[in-house]
Amino acid sequence: VIGSLRTRLRDRTLARGSRRGRSSGVLAGGALERVREQMQACLEHRGGEVSARSRAVELGATYLGLADLGRRAFLELLATIGDADRSAVDAAVSRRAAAGDEASRRTAERELRELLQPPRLDLLRQFNAIGDGVRFLVELRADALRLGEGDPALTGLADELRELLRSWFDTGFLELRRVTWDSPASLLEKLARYEAVHTVRSWDDLKNRLDADRRFFAFFHPSMPDEPLIFVEVALVQGITTDVASLLDERAPLGDPESADTAIFYSISNAQAGLVGIAFGGFLIKLVVDELRDELPRLRTFATLSPIPGFRHWMDEELAAGRLAPTPDERRALVAALGEADELDERRLAGLLRGERWSRDPALAAAVRPVLERWCAAYLLAARRPDGRAVDPVAHFHLSNGASVEQINWLGDATAKGLRQSLGLMVNYRYRLEDIEKHHEAYSADGTAAASGRVAKLVGGGG
Amino acid sequence: VIGSLRTRLRDRTLARGSRRGRSSGVLAGGALERVREQMQACLEHRGGEVSARSRAVELGATYLGLADLGRRAFLELLATIGDADRSAVDAAVSRRAAAGDEASRRTAERELRELLQPPRLDLLRQFNAIGDGVRFLVELRADALRLGEGDPALTGLADELRELLRSWFDTGFLELRRVTWDSPASLLEKLARYEAVHTVRSWDDLKNRLDADRRFFAFFHPSMPDEPLIFVEVALVQGITTDVASLLDERAPLGDPESADTAIFYSISNAQAGLVGIAFGGFLIKLVVDELRDELPRLRTFATLSPIPGFRHWMDEELAAGRLAPTPDERRALVAALGEADELDERRLAGLLRGERWSRDPALAAAVRPVLERWCAAYLLAARRPDGRAVDPVAHFHLSNGASVEQINWLGDATAKGLRQSLGLMVNYRYRLEDIEKHHEAYSADGTAAASGRVAKLVGGGG
Amino acid sequence: VIGSLRTRLRDRTLARGSRRGRSSGVLAGGALERVREQMQACLEHRGGEVSARSRAVELGATYLGLADLGRRAFLELLATIGDADRSAVDAAVSRRAAAGDEASRRTAERELRELLQPPRLDLLRQFNAIGDGVRFLVELRADALRLGEGDPALTGLADELRELLRSWFDTGFLELRRVTWDSPASLLEKLARYEAVHTVRSWDDLKNRLDADRRFFAFFHPSMPDEPLIFVEVALVQGITTDVASLLDERAPLGDPESADTAIFYSISNAQAGLVGIAFGGFLIKLVVDELRDELPRLRTFATLSPIPGFRHWMDEELAAGRLAPTPDERRALVAALGEADELDERRLAGLLRGERWSRDPALAAAVRPVLERWCAAYLLAARRPDGRAVDPVAHFHLSNGASVEQINWLGDATAKGLRQSLGLMVNYRYRLEDIEKHHEAYSADGTAAASGRVAKLVGGGG
Amino acid sequence: VIGSLRTRLRDRTLARGSRRGRSSGVLAGGALERVREQMQACLEHRGGEVSARSRAVELGATYLGLADLGRRAFLELLATIGDADRSAVDAAVSRRAAAGDEASRRTAERELRELLQPPRLDLLRQFNAIGDGVRFLVELRADALRLGEGDPALTGLADELRELLRSWFDTGFLELRRVTWDSPASLLEKLARYEAVHTVRSWDDLKNRLDADRRFFAFFHPSMPDEPLIFVEVALVQGITTDVASLLDERAPLGDPESADTAIFYSISNAQAGLVGIAFGGFLIKLVVDELRDELPRLRTFATLSPIPGFRHWMDEELAAGRLAPTPDERRALVAALGEADELDERRLAGLLRGERWSRDPALAAAVRPVLERWCAAYLLAARRPDGRAVDPVAHFHLSNGASVEQINWLGDATAKGLRQSLGLMVNYRYRLEDIEKHHEAYSADGTAAASGRVAKLVGGGG
Repeated sequence: VIGSLRTRLRDRTLARGSRRGRSSGVLAGGALERVREQMQACLEHRGGEVSARSRAVELGATYLGLADLGRRAFLELLATIGDADRSAVDAAVSRRAAAGDEASRRTAERELRELLQPPRLDLLRQFNAIGDGVRFLVELRADALRLGEGDPALTGLADELRELLRSWFDTGFLELRRVTWDSPASLLEKLARYEAVHTVRSWDDLKNRLDADRRFFAFFHPSMPDEPLIFVEVALVQGITTDVASLLDERAPLGDPESADTAIFYSISNAQAGLVGIAFGGFLIKLVVDELRDELPRLRTFATLSPIPGFRHWMDEELAAGRLAPTPDERRALVAALGEADELDERRLAGLLRGERWSRDPALAAAVRPVLERWCAAYLLAARRPDGRAVDPVAHFHLSNGASVEQINWLGDATAKGLRQSLGLMVNYRYRLEDIEKHHEAYSADGTAAASGRVAKLVGGGG
Repeated sequence: VIGSLRTRLRDRTLARGSRRGRSSGVLAGGALERVREQMQACLEHRGGEVSARSRAVELGATYLGLADLGRRAFLELLATIGDADRSAVDAAVSRRAAAGDEASRRTAERELRELLQPPRLDLLRQFNAIGDGVRFLVELRADALRLGEGDPALTGLADELRELLRSWFDTGFLELRRVTWDSPASLLEKLARYEAVHTVRSWDDLKNRLDADRRFFAFFHPSMPDEPLIFVEVALVQGITTDVASLLDERAPLGDPESADTAIFYSISNAQAGLVGIAFGGFLIKLVVDELRDELPRLRTFATLSPIPGFRHWMDEELAAGRLAPTPDERRALVAALGEADELDERRLAGLLRGERWSRDPALAAAVRPVLERWCAAYLLAARRPDGRAVDPVAHFHLSNGASVEQINWLGDATAKGLRQSLGLMVNYRYRLEDIEKHHEAYSADGTAAASGRVAKLVGGGG
Repeated sequence: VIGSLRTRLRDRTLARGSRRGRSSGVLAGGALERVREQMQACLEHRGGEVSARSRAVELGATYLGLADLGRRAFLELLATIGDADRSAVDAAVSRRAAAGDEASRRTAERELRELLQPPRLDLLRQFNAIGDGVRFLVELRADALRLGEGDPALTGLADELRELLRSWFDTGFLELRRVTWDSPASLLEKLARYEAVHTVRSWDDLKNRLDADRRFFAFFHPSMPDEPLIFVEVALVQGITTDVASLLDERAPLGDPESADTAIFYSISNAQAGLVGIAFGGFLIKLVVDELRDELPRLRTFATLSPIPGFRHWMDEELAAGRLAPTPDERRALVAALGEADELDERRLAGLLRGERWSRDPALAAAVRPVLERWCAAYLLAARRPDGRAVDPVAHFHLSNGASVEQINWLGDATAKGLRQSLGLMVNYRYRLEDIEKHHEAYSADGTAAASGRVAKLVGGGG
Repeated sequence: VIGSLRTRLRDRTLARGSRRGRSSGVLAGGALERVREQMQACLEHRGGEVSARSRAVELGATYLGLADLGRRAFLELLATIGDADRSAVDAAVSRRAAAGDEASRRTAERELRELLQPPRLDLLRQFNAIGDGVRFLVELRADALRLGEGDPALTGLADELRELLRSWFDTGFLELRRVTWDSPASLLEKLARYEAVHTVRSWDDLKNRLDADRRFFAFFHPSMPDEPLIFVEVALVQGITTDVASLLDERAPLGDPESADTAIFYSISNAQAGLVGIAFGGFLIKLVVDELRDELPRLRTFATLSPIPGFRHWMDEELAAGRLAPTPDERRALVAALGEADELDERRLAGLLRGERWSRDPALAAAVRPVLERWCAAYLLAARRPDGRAVDPVAHFHLSNGASVEQINWLGDATAKGLRQSLGLMVNYRYRLEDIEKHHEAYSADGTAAASGRVAKLVGGGG
């Protein structure tokens, strides 16, 4: 391969971008006008398509050289230039209204749809010619989202970019790669930075997650070969793992992948802020399960070990609203463990559950545990948003992928962060291939979550 | 790289497809109903996105197993299923009409545009999951075009597929590769088959076109790595080549590429019927010129040696309509060369020019030549369609890319085909980098073609 | 990989070599003296090892520019320069004679061995630095063998080169590659040229040998990645193939490799004249059998379909010496088939067997067949050289690899060449993995060939 | 590439090796006998060459499973088995003595040389068939050197292995690769471990050495693609760097490689204990200089920043022997700096120079500096072993490669290690391409070192 339009234009681009960038970073009056003119020339394909692309390259280089203030000005220009032709749209709307039969109606709609494509989209597409064009557009969208919160023009631009990127990032184009200790150090460094669930503390920590009893997979796109899109970390173990500390312990003995019966997905992270709203996770899990079954036919169980990021917040609100309370038995046990007389008001209860004390007091912890586990099960199985989705975002992700709630793990994550967000609880979601479709349909219909008998029983117990 | 969704699904797909295909090839009643149901399930994303994709794979396999009759039925189903939601569209049209300010209008239009996207497009996108998914969609479109001539449903479907494919085949994604004698034999075999300008007669002919004094470039797409999209053949020579026979002569002495001053683009062919209407040629020429300048800095001139496919047909029509005639001087010379008295009526003139005789009679040819060259120049520079495009498709391609008409070559292609379509004439279009934008703009504005002084003079001479 | 010493020096080398080469091609007086000086400087490692290598590059370039006459002069110089140091060797011989115990003897021998390494070998090794160094040395040896027949200096040089190359071409370094229709056209062209058993007639012929029911494997060396060393062609069939025409028929229906039970090795060719005397064939067959068993577990039988190149010549000599005769029964049948009285003298018999007539006369052929088959079996199983090796070189190759003689095929190769060299007979050698060691040992010990019952019976019948 | 004999045998091998290894690690009586038998079978090529190789694979697997004690027993067996045939050698010696003319003498010597090749060498060669065969032999030699110090049998074996490996590791086969932060983490980890000059302290330290203003090159062999053989670290700077701390400072500002005029080779390390005695360093430096000149044509100066590992030890010995003394002026300055009366006996002088005090006392250091610099220059330019080589091994390496002594750097390495081995001094050796041959020849002839005027003057000053 000699290269692509993009690689040919790259060096020029980046060199210019960075040199200009250093000098200012702002988009002053004259420069802004010049950018508008160039955008206009691109929109008109002045000088032919090839020239328009070269011009887009210049625009992109300008953008890369800007600081946030300048970038915002650039994005706002981009969000409003090159709108659809109003009168042509109006005419097409009329033609559609007048269309008699099915076929002419279909034609009119196609026409209308095309007219509604703002030329701006075309301009955005031209940036694909820039050095690392796709990566540039992903960055553009990340910026539009970051800088444009609450600004309808910029969020509108971000939506248009999502349309464009969704097409290019169709799952059919994604490449699944296994990441190992033989992968480029620069890639491993990025993955460590992107890891959002269990922070990577050191190179040794990372090496442990790439050892012989682990698997680490990531999705890549051919146009951004060095940039992971999303990745998942898997441990090959005997039986379902219930706490994450054992997996992150670098000195734990090495397991034998050949004799493992269970694959635990213990971390899954999105890596690209500019691709928010384009879903890869479900496909990633599906492909990784397939891949693991091919490689290690003795694997029987595929489950996650997942955080419950929204539990603590939800519990606090429910308690405050008086919608949650311990059962009388639970209350008695708590009081006994406190070694006090029978006077546990709601404020003390809330304070108690927050873990400042029980996490250091085994007897108290034993009394707290059934309460929290019961409420957590309720949270996962029944806490729903008005649109029917689970309140917990991780639960929503796995339930909509067809998983079931297998097990709630007491002190599954005893780190400060774990205690803070979910009082140390973690959950295993389980993927049973034969049930995935059924579970997905049930959850899509009305938010019903499949659960193991044990977890279902927890909820049955009142509260 | 472990693979992609597509490669993982490939074997299953094709195996099934081919086995079914052999048995029937037609889409009988029950089967048609089953296909409709599967399409419907895909449209509804039943069982989740991953399941929908698997279902699309099945549909694709079914399609690949069908003969033309069955394929047509399948395509017709596909063209009409999954239309946009009419009432939702109507409501959005109303919202747009009611929109007060710019921003809400923009939002309404975005909404409307989205609603006008028929779910069918989504279904088409799902085929990308099939083994060799992109290639499949290219084939689907080729079939829709081939089987659907005059059928608005199928041409509509072909248009929708073009929208989809245009996005995936954005020039930013294309890879330029040099093809050499070290390329896979299977690829060379394909290129020989796709060559549409100067038929490849043998492996020796092909090897000659890949020799040290030639360059052969093709565009590829990462999702169809074995399939060329478009390719161009270049000869490295001294001065502009005026006849194609010397280039195709396998026994001609080998030139020295290091001392060549001119690159002649003597053949450019599209390879994919399913990508008709998506333009790659301009970019290919631009990239190849860049590539050649990098490799061989002594190159000064970049020009084509091109056929004039529409000349003969145009001349016949013009003559028949009495809009073309030799000048008195030309007529005298023709009569003299015929060795007859002064009686050359139009029918004899037409017959004479058709080359049945002059191509074997040097004196006569000498008298015919100025007439044909003059008319040919007029054809290239002035024969225009109502929309301003050149009547000649090859002329349109190069003129819209910013080339100029450099030189008309008498007996540039003396093969039967050459005589038949352009009375043996060929033309050199020239690419001057500094003039490309200017020429493009002039031609885009009103069809004005840039031309060398020599060619311009031919036309100045009357006619 | 940035490159190697070799690639860095390549361009310079070849450019110089070819330019000089064109000018003369002979090694005249002054030039010869200059070559001798350079060789001397290389031997002395003048200016350091890196400089010595650069000098070797110059020498190599000089050589490549020479025609045969010049090359011969160069080789003769090379064969005699840089001999071992005689007096040092004499001293070491004395030390060895004086060595008392085992250890000091071993040390003395090691010393002697090192002193006997002529510095010339070091000089040859330095050529490895030349562009395509290994290929150069292979060519050097091919030249020494070709130009030096009967010249002890040049054959000595060829022997020294064999020592060097044997080490570099250790089977541990060879790469087995499958060749397919997707392989580079330039490689396929080479393979067609190197095929020594069944001439490749056309690209279609070659494509047939690479079809889905064939396998084509070659050994390569990492230092000559474009040059096959040896290759084998395999057909996947049902039952043992007995004639080669069916395999070479391009229009024969395609077999299904999945259901094949037999792999027929129908052609094996060495590709490098400069590697004569370094054996790869046995390893190739062993690896290919392993490879095929991995890919197609249904394969049960591995056999060749081989020519018998020495049969005709041997038979002629044996007949002339009166050591072969038909049995009385055979003689009677022959006479009857000739339709003559009982008078078949030896000259007529010889003429008859030579196939000028029987190959066109079925009745006569039926009478000739048992005679030839019996003699052929005797030839394969019993005709031995004084050192115990089979007279037939192909038989020696397979028998020493541990194969057995499975079957003799009447009219296995009815081409002119086949009739000429073996009266149309071919043979299947069979590789039974469990017997390979045993057969090899028996043949190594005293030339005993394993044979199937059928073939053994042929020989049992007299002669 | 399908693979090689080695890869095909790998899995089997290592699996067996490791399983056995775990069980014992020692080579007990019966097992030892079995090993001897297998070696014998290999020597006799029993069952053919392919079988012999398989047997070598078994032997290799056995070896890999052994602990040091067992390995030593194995190596001793290997060192004595398969000796040359004494009587055949004796006969060949006689034939050589009797040889009359040049040609027959040459033939006799070739014969003798071949007979002196112990079959053991052939057995060693067979190990090349083992999984990662070349790496195995390198390990075998490392073991023989490590375990066999002072044992003539094992050092003899190590010598034989060097002969074998020298041929396979001919510089013509080596690949130069640039190592970057995009290289595999596993490779970077190895390089950090192998770095012998300036210890790598952390991943950040390593990343700094791979930054944009650095270059890092290593030699690899195609048969050990993951194992660096030798590597060099280069800094791209303005002017010659005189202290190593600035290069190892991770927070130092990034230089611009495009404007650098000097390349400083600040670390060069051998990575393979089993390849000791096979020289790669000279070639590496030469190739890297070429590579850098290609990439960055503005580079003018190529120099090292090198340790002087033997200086301290040499100085101590010279002082003790009374062969070194300060000049009267120097002595006066030292005394003045000490702030004492004129009584500096030799013991105090020695103690003083050892740096316990002056390295913390600027005034004293200023007095010590000229003394040490002068002696260091003398050490580098004149301290020679009886065979003429420089006493300092690093000096010998660069001087024999044709470098000159450019500059001695006071406090070039102020680390504890630097003070300990060379009192903080470092030296720049300079590579001037046009002088390399001349310098090499002068140094080879009689140990003469080229030096800059400044350094030469230091020595001229007495001592």
